[in-house]
Amino acid sequence: MSRKREKTNAGGVAKSGLDVLFAPASVAIVGASSDPARIGGRPISYYLRANFKGKIYPVNPKRDTVQGLKSYPDLASIPGTVDFAILSIPSSAIKQAMRDCGEKGVRAVLIFSAGFSEMGDEGAALQDEIAEIARGYGIRVLGPNCLGLYNAAVGHCPTFSSGLDGTAPKIGKIGLITQSGAYGTHLLSLAKTRRLGIGMWISTGNEIDVTTAECLEYLVESDDIDVIGLYMEGIRDPETMIRALERARELRKPVIIMKVGVSEVGSAAAQSHTASLAGSDASIQAVFDQVGAMRARTTEDMLDVLYAASISAPARGDRLGILTVSGGAGVLMADAAEAEGIAVPPMPDTAVQRLLERNPFSAPYNPVDITAHALNDFSLIEENLTAMRDDGAYDLLVAFFTSLTASEVLGPRIQKTMSEALRGRGLPVALVGQAPEHLLVAYEADGIMVFEDPSRAVAALAALSRFQTAFDAPATDPADIPTLPNPPLAARSYGEVEAKFVVEMAGIAILEEVLVTTPQEAGDVAARLDCPVAMKIVSPDIAHKSEVGGVALNLSGADATRAAAQTMLATVAKHAPDADITGLLISPMASDGVELIVGAKRDEVFGMMIVVGLGGVFTEIMQDVALSLAPVTPARAEMMLRSLRGAPLMLGARGRAVLDIRAAANAVSRLSVLAKQNEATVESIEINPLLVRENGVVALDALILPRTL
Amino acid sequence: MSRKREKTNAGGVAKSGLDVLFAPASVAIVGASSDPARIGGRPISYYLRANFKGKIYPVNPKRDTVQGLKSYPDLASIPGTVDFAILSIPSSAIKQAMRDCGEKGVRAVLIFSAGFSEMGDEGAALQDEIAEIARGYGIRVLGPNCLGLYNAAVGHCPTFSSGLDGTAPKIGKIGLITQSGAYGTHLLSLAKTRRLGIGMWISTGNEIDVTTAECLEYLVESDDIDVIGLYMEGIRDPETMIRALERARELRKPVIIMKVGVSEVGSAAAQSHTASLAGSDASIQAVFDQVGAMRARTTEDMLDVLYAASISAPARGDRLGILTVSGGAGVLMADAAEAEGIAVPPMPDTAVQRLLERNPFSAPYNPVDITAHALNDFSLIEENLTAMRDDGAYDLLVAFFTSLTASEVLGPRIQKTMSEALRGRGLPVALVGQAPEHLLVAYEADGIMVFEDPSRAVAALAALSRFQTAFDAPATDPADIPTLPNPPLAARSYGEVEAKFVVEMAGIAILEEVLVTTPQEAGDVAARLDCPVAMKIVSPDIAHKSEVGGVALNLSGADATRAAAQTMLATVAKHAPDADITGLLISPMASDGVELIVGAKRDEVFGMMIVVGLGGVFTEIMQDVALSLAPVTPARAEMMLRSLRGAPLMLGARGRAVLDIRAAANAVSRLSVLAKQNEATVESIEINPLLVRENGVVALDALILPRTL
Repeated sequence: MSRKREKTNAGGVAKSGLDVLFAPASVAIVGASSDPARIGGRPISYYLRANFKGKIYPVNPKRDTVQGLKSYPDLASIPGTVDFAILSIPSSAIKQAMRDCGEKGVRAVLIFSAGFSEMGDEGAALQDEIAEIARGYGIRVLGPNCLGLYNAAVGHCPTFSSGLDGTAPKIGKIGLITQSGAYGTHLLSLAKTRRLGIGMWISTGNEIDVTTAECLEYLVESDDIDVIGLYMEGIRDPETMIRALERARELRKPVIIMKVGVSEVGSAAAQSHTASLAGSDASIQAVFDQVGAMRARTTEDMLDVLYAASISAPARGDRLGILTVSGGAGVLMADAAEAEGIAVPPMPDTAVQRLLERNPFSAPYNPVDITAHALNDFSLIEENLTAMRDDGAYDLLVAFFTSLTASEVLGPRIQKTMSEALRGRGLPVALVGQAPEHLLVAYEADGIMVFEDPSRAVAALAALSRFQTAFDAPATDPADIPTLPNPPLAARSYGEVEAKFVVEMAGIAILEEVLVTTPQEAGDVAARLDCPVAMKIVSPDIAHKSEVGGVALNLSGADATRAAAQTMLATVAKHAPDADITGLLISPMASDGVELIVGAKRDEVFGMMIVVGLGGVFTEIMQDVALSLAPVTPARAEMMLRSLRGAPLMLGARGRAVLDIRAAANAVSRLSVLAKQNEATVESIEINPLLVRENGVVALDALILPRTL
Repeated sequence: MSRKREKTNAGGVAKSGLDVLFAPASVAIVGASSDPARIGGRPISYYLRANFKGKIYPVNPKRDTVQGLKSYPDLASIPGTVDFAILSIPSSAIKQAMRDCGEKGVRAVLIFSAGFSEMGDEGAALQDEIAEIARGYGIRVLGPNCLGLYNAAVGHCPTFSSGLDGTAPKIGKIGLITQSGAYGTHLLSLAKTRRLGIGMWISTGNEIDVTTAECLEYLVESDDIDVIGLYMEGIRDPETMIRALERARELRKPVIIMKVGVSEVGSAAAQSHTASLAGSDASIQAVFDQVGAMRARTTEDMLDVLYAASISAPARGDRLGILTVSGGAGVLMADAAEAEGIAVPPMPDTAVQRLLERNPFSAPYNPVDITAHALNDFSLIEENLTAMRDDGAYDLLVAFFTSLTASEVLGPRIQKTMSEALRGRGLPVALVGQAPEHLLVAYEADGIMVFEDPSRAVAALAALSRFQTAFDAPATDPADIPTLPNPPLAARSYGEVEAKFVVEMAGIAILEEVLVTTPQEAGDVAARLDCPVAMKIVSPDIAHKSEVGGVALNLSGADATRAAAQTMLATVAKHAPDADITGLLISPMASDGVELIVGAKRDEVFGMMIVVGLGGVFTEIMQDVALSLAPVTPARAEMMLRSLRGAPLMLGARGRAVLDIRAAANAVSRLSVLAKQNEATVESIEINPLLVRENGVVALDALILPRTL
């Protein structure tokens, strides 16, 4: 982690003025209501319940007090400074209120009101005016059309979300950011039911100023937040988003993202082969993968992983130990582990023997099936757990006790045994079972998660392991990005010949073609190339070369090539006596290999992306492609190539040759750099095919299309 | 549905004697305990709580009464008949107890005791002896090593599962069958929490007599059961299982199966190409697909679908209407619908206009986003729901109200509005939200499911729709299975020539090969075939035909073929003067097309399966194959072919020719019949490749391997 970068980021956040938005010392509520059920009343009741330490100033010209607090007729009447104001008033009154805030010296404003860009052009214009006023006064704005935020650490509750109704959620280190207030409220309500510890909740609304990405950056840097859940519909600020996600990885903070609105690039925009494959949802997925963020597919995915990451120690690896009183459930969890791509390695033989001597009814192999017999002697459970911890040295542990965990007699004993064996051991542990609330709390206090569904328990443990892998992956070293000698490309199409010239300059081999005029030269070139060559007649007057004997393939060595050239010139002269002969074009034969499609294509959100796929049916029919944000290092390009389902074709599957995947990765990396450098003028660059051989690669065709604005 | 078949099945079940196991009039508990927490005590306490109407006879020589009931020293002392006995005694005492049961006239016995085949050879031998005794007396046996069963309709509770502890589950029409008592208990406990209505729960244990498949058959025929969940580790009785699943489909009863232990066929057994693809888990999946049963991947999958199918009306189709107060959640659910493969068609324009006039803030397109404004006027919610029901005419409906459904004021009003608009309309409806218990009960009573996770709600609705599709699919008509003229195959390998002869007899075209001895004949054959031909020298003395000039391809017409034959005979005579020449083999050139691999292979559990895949990388690298139980009709074979990811290659993708998929399907069907008919002697039959052309197909190579016993 670079110190310089740390400083820049921290400075950036400080300068951004978000501290006063998320943790102000004084708060005004413009449009304060004495009814704690109303939008202008809820924040006040939440502040009071949360015991907010700062000053709270209700603003309501019609009342002297609001919910027991002194009320002010307007902002100007408030004595002393106001850091932060909530505007809970009709949209038509917002402009004046913003000016009042400016005059009062308010530095951050939160606008609940709807009726802006979501309501059409008029609202959008009003929204622009408000943003302009805010910029003039240097005010940061959250919203409008948002449900506000909640910062548990300081009791800052400028929100009317019903997610805070009734009891407040447990306080903890989970941060939630949502572009949908209603969905965010749903998430918050479910988080409460599942005892998730919430540190921060932010609804961003129309984002006329503060963006989701900035909020993410703030939470990533916050000491109060360890794990972050994000609900997104669109990305306004991709650079900040990516920077924040990269920083989260540096700081080893899991980020789980629900990105909805899976869309496809319109087919009209599809100019080149890869266009239909680099659709923006695929880009988003690629970017998330690249920065180690997890994509939640369901609400439950998100809650499960937030829960696991907030309760458990980090995972050290992906070796799962399974303890069970039911053979069947053990098999089920082993199946789930395989589906999640984590390992279920066996217990060491010595431990198995020792455990079997103590409990001959058991099958302590992993799954470690202790059977119901172990319930007659809890020391057996303890010994098996200890053996899994120490002898098995598993990275992850799941324990299945059916509904016995809910039993009045056995339940507390199971909890005690689990905790004593595993507490403070730095091992992510999930119990599968049901239990009364007080036991759930006890488990979780000792770092043990509880799930009802064995498959979900395994999935959550697997997610912890995947985060760890992502965190441990080395950050991209700029020194690993190749430097190219290419001059900038013009904003125009480059056809095959030019485009091949450009990619060759970028260090990607193309087939060498040499024009000669005599058989002697032809032989010399073949000798120099030192490989079988193809020879073609070049003449402006000959369209169908092979019909006049103008093509010869697979010529080996100087003598054969020289002879063939003599024959060719003679034969052509005979068949096309009037043709003007420019010469003979000699090139190496394209030998056996596998064809790749390598394309760089601009994504509307993220800019230049690089796509690789195997040629032919793999890309056309199976859509078997890998995507990354450009530029990529050769190492990342190789990961992309190896991730293809068709990769075995390059790796020696079923007796095939092992091809030069490293050279292919190098070419992919270079193309990604070339495209990124020319992002301002180029829409796409494609090499199709790139022939991967046993030694090296060669670009057989290429095309560059200009950016269309 | 055939009347004859109905009668046979019903008769079969009646004869099987399972009625007395599942609904006896009198019950003895051998090994009865007065402690309701002990294994021999629990069933009695459960019977008493369930108000069982039959007679209960505790058997315990040491007590006069057990849990308030008169106790008997042994079975013989019980006055009157005993239909059914629970044996809750050590395994060593079971043999004598079985004989006592036999003498007393007991017709069904349930054995809790463990210590049998699961404990090794000795236990297995004991188990065999017990089965023998049972057969001698004509006693049906459930278990041993099982947790018993529960039949809610008659209060029959011969079980010690802690799943019945505390309160009994709600009574309903869900049947659960489990091969793991512990996992089944977990399922039962979770079912209680989720208010699933349970009709029957059966733990089958070691299945020395009554199998999972028989239990399934019984539940399928039972009027008390409408939907069935099955936990399986292995299939003992595949024929009964398939028959029961087919019958469930006839009766339109959803069956959800959790099959664990995903295993792979050992590579040693892999003799032919398809061996590694027809692994038993793939076979199981194929069979489930074929009979319309759903495979649950997680516990939650199973519970969700049991819940949905037990509460909701059947689905009419797959058109989902989405009502939401949150745009974001609407998008999320539309994404989920796409992922589940169901449609989200738009509302009709007229309805959209009408709804927009009433609520300009809304976006009633589908998702129908009514926004929070609708909460100010519940008639808006009602109008939108009614419009979706009547104008949209959706087959499935999901409604998202965030946590407002839990609000004290709004919650009951939302419930009332939903119920009034949708109750009794025969439309599967899911509400997404949280709600207090009494509201949940009210929703469910009106046929509205409640989910907390919007994605899971959509998945459950999609499952209902898939069941309906499976139920509506026409049953296989035996008349659609082709009849073949082939005589039985011997239990030996058939090489290319013989195997091609066999498949040709089965009605699958092979390339015609004609042996000629003179150039004149060669020319005549080419003229008759009237297409480009290939010609090869045939000689027992020539191994490498092309090296001696013994291969000529793409010969067109009589003259060219005759000339080529003369040249070939001369050239071969020159290069191999001593070779004995049998003649020349003329065959049509195999024209362009796509190569399929079609294989029939015996699965250990299900017998002959048929596998199809596209040749080359599709099968080798992508494992893109489709599997079915043999025999298949041409219609089913065509479904299999169309289900391949590579199917577009045959269907005209990207300017390709549209190939004769019907002829291919016909060949697949015929091969499946051939293999099924020879199941006793044949291990596998493979056509590789089967060339699919624009007109017809042709088998280019074939191989038949004998069954290895």
